[in-house]
Amino acid sequence: MTNIAKGLEGVLFTESKLTFINGSEGILTHLGIPIQEWAEKSTFEELSLALLDGKLPTAAELAHFDAELRANRAVPQQLIDVIQNMPRGVHPMQALRTAVSYLGLLDPQAEEVTPEARRAIATRMIAQFSTIIAAINRAQEGQEIVAPRADLTHAGNYLYMLSGKEPTAEQARLFDIALVLHADHGMNASTFTAIATSSTLSDMYSCITSAIGALKGPLHGGANEAVMDMLDEVGNPEQAEAYITKKLDNKEKIMGVGHRVYKYFDPRSRVLRDYAEVVANKQGKSNYYQILETIEKVVVDRIGSKGIYPNVDFYSGTVYSDLGIRKEYFTPIFALARISGWCASVIEYSRDNRLLRPDAVYSGATDAHYVDIQDRQ
Amino acid sequence: MTNIAKGLEGVLFTESKLTFINGSEGILTHLGIPIQEWAEKSTFEELSLALLDGKLPTAAELAHFDAELRANRAVPQQLIDVIQNMPRGVHPMQALRTAVSYLGLLDPQAEEVTPEARRAIATRMIAQFSTIIAAINRAQEGQEIVAPRADLTHAGNYLYMLSGKEPTAEQARLFDIALVLHADHGMNASTFTAIATSSTLSDMYSCITSAIGALKGPLHGGANEAVMDMLDEVGNPEQAEAYITKKLDNKEKIMGVGHRVYKYFDPRSRVLRDYAEVVANKQGKSNYYQILETIEKVVVDRIGSKGIYPNVDFYSGTVYSDLGIRKEYFTPIFALARISGWCASVIEYSRDNRLLRPDAVYSGATDAHYVDIQDRQ
Ligand SMILES: CC(C)(COP(=O)(O)OP(=O)(O)OC[C@H]1O[C@@H](n2cnc3c(N)ncnc32)[C@H](O)[C@@H]1OP(=O)(O)O)[C@@H](O)C(=O)NCCC(=O)NCCS
Ligand SMILES: CC(C)(COP(=O)(O)OP(=O)(O)OC[C@H]1O[C@@H](n2cnc3c(N)ncnc32)[C@H](O)[C@@H]1OP(=O)(O)O)[C@@H](O)C(=O)NCCC(=O)NCCS
Repeated sequence: MTNIAKGLEGVLFTESKLTFINGSEGILTHLGIPIQEWAEKSTFEELSLALLDGKLPTAAELAHFDAELRANRAVPQQLIDVIQNMPRGVHPMQALRTAVSYLGLLDPQAEEVTPEARRAIATRMIAQFSTIIAAINRAQEGQEIVAPRADLTHAGNYLYMLSGKEPTAEQARLFDIALVLHADHGMNASTFTAIATSSTLSDMYSCITSAIGALKGPLHGGANEAVMDMLDEVGNPEQAEAYITKKLDNKEKIMGVGHRVYKYFDPRSRVLRDYAEVVANKQGKSNYYQILETIEKVVVDRIGSKGIYPNVDFYSGTVYSDLGIRKEYFTPIFALARISGWCASVIEYSRDNRLLRPDAVYSGATDAHYVDIQDRQ
Repeated sequence: MTNIAKGLEGVLFTESKLTFINGSEGILTHLGIPIQEWAEKSTFEELSLALLDGKLPTAAELAHFDAELRANRAVPQQLIDVIQNMPRGVHPMQALRTAVSYLGLLDPQAEEVTPEARRAIATRMIAQFSTIIAAINRAQEGQEIVAPRADLTHAGNYLYMLSGKEPTAEQARLFDIALVLHADHGMNASTFTAIATSSTLSDMYSCITSAIGALKGPLHGGANEAVMDMLDEVGNPEQAEAYITKKLDNKEKIMGVGHRVYKYFDPRSRVLRDYAEVVANKQGKSNYYQILETIEKVVVDRIGSKGIYPNVDFYSGTVYSDLGIRKEYFTPIFALARISGWCASVIEYSRDNRLLRPDAVYSGATDAHYVDIQDRQ
């Protein structure tokens, strides 16, 4: 029997200096720095730049990058028209994939593939993703599109464009932390798909369009949406324990727990839980938060020994809900954060590029011949 | 040292019954049937159906599929408007990627991912790719878009939509053979990217958009365009030998020869050469064909022993040129054929899906900490 590396699990195909994950101890670092420190002390702007350049920026570098992001928030009117003319009710990730692909048609630098050009395009894309996603959200709901503001942070400006109202500093910071937590996560399927595309020396818009398409799948993005569905199904905290116990007894999968890599608490879930708790306590513990607390306790007690613990999607949905983001937009919000990891990973890979060309075991017919159609059975 | 499978070369990640390649003997089969037989006896419609279903169709099945293709050639007017409003001078593959992504917004079945739904979408996509590519070509050249005709073959209708004139039966058949030769080729980078996208259970439009983005890269599509550039550089047959000899002496790469898998004649190049010769002889041996003949002889003599032989791109360009296809559209024409292999491969993989999640060797900093920005060097 030939050995098949199904799902490419455990196959090492390149080197990377960006992200390290130790799944059994629940450790995640970017540039060697624990995710908890990034969440507590840094910002999405800074982490994005650090990933792109592979180092902590100086104050001058960060100020320059931040100014570039602010200056590049607007997208061409032609793209706004395309977004407004999209049919209503489409999947937001189909809309995002199409809008980003279209943006490539409007970028005179689109075809350049040197690391420098890729980095310049990445910076604009990081800035513009925010405008595009907010525009899709509003256009799909029949609301007028809100133009970006240059005086707000990246996170604050997104919430502003989404609602038309300036968020509180606390809301902006909470959303910023959520973006930091989702900015990169090693060779996940969407990052890998972006790299596969770039390995033919294709352009950045092609790479990112591919990544959006991969993230769209329910096995990748989408689990936090399923968690919200579960919370709505449970309804109130008193029912939570019975609901979960029954699911576990029936060997059903609980959404937002378990992970291919983490066999212990996903460290991002701990940070999000702390913030979700703060939010919940301020507003009087929300039903959602209380239900999650109960589910976490039951899951850890009953199947923690199998390596099943809350993952990043477990608490993120309630945080987004509190910020006024509808669950259909949770996956686009994932993309809003992951764009930095996608771009940084493509740029890193392209510095030592090698065409990706794996192989399949052939298990079909051999020595067959074409049979004239009237002679077929 | 950890073992890195660079480029995933030699890594087997799944089983497939579609295509078999023996690179050292120059063998290529689909469903076990040699490519030469497909080219000689079959059609693009039949091979597409055979790949989708994993078997030679009956006469009734083929008639049904062919009728479906003919019935589905038209694309929604909204997509035609989008294509017409695209800026002039964009890369045709950026335009194709965007148009196919947009088509997903207009397909009510787009989100369905069962094998049956994927197959239904695939059939429409195969039919519509032709209309989309011809429309892009004409719109980009400022010409009116020509609506498809249902009374022509798939290949004949493409040439008709491209020029506005019905092709001869011979031209239609020659183009049909070119499509047959390019319909599938195992786990090449674009097919693999399509599979990576589908492995998250994402939809067909996402998979195919990703594949287009990967094919766009010059390491994958694009070599036949470079061959035409070379032919124009050589100019006339008397210069060919000196030109190539000098290149080889300077250790420069010759376009259209050499292949990661084939270390002998690519069988597709043999079929194409024969047809290119027929065309050339009819019109009085064209300069292009004579130059290629000379280059082939010199290359095989001088570096055949290194496993360097003409690949599929070597003769395809002259055939396309003869059919009135401009070289900027060679890669979209590749997509026009490969859509069948992409769809068939995604459907086959999705029947026994496994999320693709390889890994990278971490080679970055360890035990680092966040440093306050004023304290950084
Ligand atoms: C992510 C996931 C696919 C990882 O699966 P995996 O690493 O292959 O884990 P396994 O399938 O090997 O599971 C090991 C055991 O835990 C159980 N288990 C895994 N995930 C579970 C879940 N979410 N709820 C309940 N039990 C679960 C399995 O049934 C299995 O039990 P068994 O040994 O008695 O058969 C899986 O945990 C899952 O589907 N989670 C829910 C969806 C989700 O939140 N996805 C987002 C991930 S970021
Ligand atoms: C396709 C390609 C990348 C395959 O490369 P590969 O399998 O990695 O082959 P290698 O690089 O190992 O080459 C082996 C030897 O042949 C030589 N060689 C390979 N391709 C050559 C070419 N196109 N022209 C001249 N010499 C070539 C190499 O220089 C090397 O010589 P050496 O042993 O003296 O150093 C390469 O042949 C190429 O660039 N071809 C031209 C582009 C093209 O037509 N691509 C379309 C492929 S469908």
